[in-house]
This record gives sequence, structure tokens and C-alpha cells, in this order.
Amino acid sequence: MPSEHKRIVVRRDILADAKADAAIERQRLLDRGTLVINLVSSPGAGKTSLLQATAKHLQGQYSMAVLVGDLETDRDAQRLSPYAPVAQLTTGGACHLELPLVRRGLIALGDPRVDFLFIENVGNLVCPASHDLGEHLRVVMLSVTDGDDKPGKYPKMFRTSHAVVISKVDLLPYVPFQVENAIQDALMVQPSLSAIQVSSHQGLGIDQWCRFLIESRERLVLRRECTSAV
Amino acid sequence: MPSEHKRIVVRRDILADAKADAAIERQRLLDRGTLVINLVSSPGAGKTSLLQATAKHLQGQYSMAVLVGDLETDRDAQRLSPYAPVAQLTTGGACHLELPLVRRGLIALGDPRVDFLFIENVGNLVCPASHDLGEHLRVVMLSVTDGDDKPGKYPKMFRTSHAVVISKVDLLPYVPFQVENAIQDALMVQPSLSAIQVSSHQGLGIDQWCRFLIESRERLVLRRECTSAV
Repeated sequence: MPSEHKRIVVRRDILADAKADAAIERQRLLDRGTLVINLVSSPGAGKTSLLQATAKHLQGQYSMAVLVGDLETDRDAQRLSPYAPVAQLTTGGACHLELPLVRRGLIALGDPRVDFLFIENVGNLVCPASHDLGEHLRVVMLSVTDGDDKPGKYPKMFRTSHAVVISKVDLLPYVPFQVENAIQDALMVQPSLSAIQVSSHQGLGIDQWCRFLIESRERLVLRRECTSAV
Repeated sequence: MPSEHKRIVVRRDILADAKADAAIERQRLLDRGTLVINLVSSPGAGKTSLLQATAKHLQGQYSMAVLVGDLETDRDAQRLSPYAPVAQLTTGGACHLELPLVRRGLIALGDPRVDFLFIENVGNLVCPASHDLGEHLRVVMLSVTDGDDKPGKYPKMFRTSHAVVISKVDLLPYVPFQVENAIQDALMVQPSLSAIQVSSHQGLGIDQWCRFLIESRERLVLRRECTSAV
């Protein structure tokens, strides 16, 4: 009786293998005490400037390295190289980073044992949201010049992030951006999001941002130690 | 003799059908005197604000309609609806617009006979570069707050555009952006690019921008008339 035959469609996440790989990388780097931060934003929100300010602030206390993703050019790597070990990841046109390229960058740096590994993603508020790079923290930057309506318009990026860094706050007097509106909009999408306001050029909020990084690392390393003690 | 057999790999542009469709749409809209502008930029560069200013400037002289692309929300359509007929195209997460969705938007507007049809693309400086929407002009916006190094870092978008609109020039005194550097960088990628500077909020450069639109429309309509006279 054909009517008794049912068709069962088995669907599989096409990114399942990539996610499993990312989980392995995340654990490997955690085991050596490295916190991995995937820094995402639209183009020009200030990722490179924030990393310059971060490197200056952490200097002498914590070690860090940076992998910088771009479609073309090594401009960001050049800007960062005076401050930290850096490898440029050139996607050749692709709109986001993926783990194999990240791994190549790590090998190029000699797979360093650092406290913080920053991955500066391609400037794109859409596509990088779908790709796990083995990070422990995903941090989305939102410039005050880009408008306080962006979280709801680009929800996946904010939904999959742990923190939002509101950048260029020194320009607040000149732009129609309400910090409270932006944070409220972001929390509608992801209620557990931490929010930090910075101006990298003027050094505002860098202390708070670095404290967030250090505390996140301690919390994750501590958790790992607890887990391994069980 | 197997050595005489050669393997011939026939490759085909996977977007060939979409490009052919776009060419048909481009001709159809040109035939009725509509200039189609695909407006692209990173998120928050000021596409919606520019279109508000454009609508006010052209009011009473030229007719226009707008199709607004976003991942989620109809915020931009709400902002534009007091100024022009507008349809929101919600991609539901996709990082760029494609022609079928544009056609649906046109139908929603009643396929209007307008002088200018603006397609405000998803805020993304990468992926929309690869998709022909049947436009006659592709215009890329670059905000002065995003940095003058962007054309070389996002070359395909600038290479495939006809004009660059440098926006938010009222903020030039507060940001490290050299207009000449940005234009030079853009011209390295696309030597035939027109460059226009605007501040939509302060109404600066809107006259020049609208003149560019009107002249482009006249040139294209004239060319069409010449062609049909042969």
C-alpha cells in the first residue's frame, strides 16, 4: 500500500563540519590559556584603531596577536604591526573569514602562546555572522556615525555576539545617535549583550574594554580549570 | 591512443541567466524613460538620508520611486514614505538584493512610470557588487567617518560603480579623512568614476548630485533615441 510509505527528508547543517572544527580549535586555544576574540563590524567602524589602542593598553601585562582579514591590501596589518604580532588574511574578494584561513594565519605567526588572539574580520555586518572561527567571544562594533537603528536591521550579527562596542563616541555631539536607543535595540535582539562605549582616538573607554577582555579571559580559564578538575 | 584525447572543461558563468534577465529589465525601464540607480554602501553611510534629500530636491520637476532593501525591519521605507512611493524589500537575512525581489517590489508599486527608480541595496560593501539588478547606474557611497582607505580594501564595489558619493562631509573637521586620498584610491580601482561630495543633513552637494542624475538620465535617454533612429 503506497499510502503507508512516508518520505522522510533528512536535512543536515551544511556548516556542521566547519562548526565541529571550530569547536576543536576553540578548545585547543582555551587549553593553552588564549582567549580568542572575533571582532566584527561594518567597514570603517574602527576595528583596527580599537586593536591599536588595546595593544598599547595591555602592553607589558598581557601578550596578544592579531589576524587581520581583508578582501585586498595589507593596510590594516601595516597599521597594527608596530603594536603586536600580526598576520594579514587576504580573502581575495570573499566577504568573510573562515577557519582554514584563520589557521593559516596562526601558522604564519608560529602558532604563538598569547593571552589574547584577536581576529579582525572583514568589514561586513552580514556574512561573518554565519561563520564560527573558533572564537570564545564575538564582539560587534557599532560606530555612532552609522546610526542607532542598526542592531534591528542586522539582527543576526548582534544575536550571535557577546558584546557590542559602541565606537567613535567623541563624535556624538555631531551626529543623530542616541546611545540608549542603540543599546535598547541591541538588547531586543540579544538580551545578554554587554555594551561598552569607546573612542579609540581619544582613549575613552579603553580601560573598561580591556577590563572586559581580562575578566572574560579569567572567567573562561577558570571555568576550564574547574571542568578539568572534575 | 589515449594521449591524443584531451579533456576540455567548459565553464559557464553561474550568474549568466541572472545577467541576461537584468539586461532585459534594464532595457525595458530605459525604453519608458526610467533611469535605475543601484545605491550601495556599507551600513549607515547615509543612503536613506541621501534619498530623502534627493526626493525633496527633485520634487515637482521629476518623478521618482524607491525600492529599499534590508535584512529585517521596514525602518528605511518608513523614513522614505513621506517623500516618494516606496516598497520595502526584506531579504530575511540575505546579504544583497537580487533581481526577482526587485521585480516583486516594482509590482508592489504598480510598476510606476517614473523618471528615477532608486534601489537602496542592503548595507554591505562586498556582496551586492556581484549582482546586477538591471540598473543603469551603480553609485557607491563612502562616508567620511568610514575612512579614506576603503576603495582599495573593497575594490570590486568601486570597480563596478559609475560614481562615488562621499557623504557626511559636514563631519570632515572631526575625522581623519582626506577627500583627495579617497578619490585617488577610488580612481586607482576605477579610473572613470565620478566623485560627488554631499552632506544630506546640511543639504551640501545635493544640487550637484541631482544634476549628475538628471544629466545621466538625459544622456541615456538620448543615446536610446539615437539608437532607435538608426
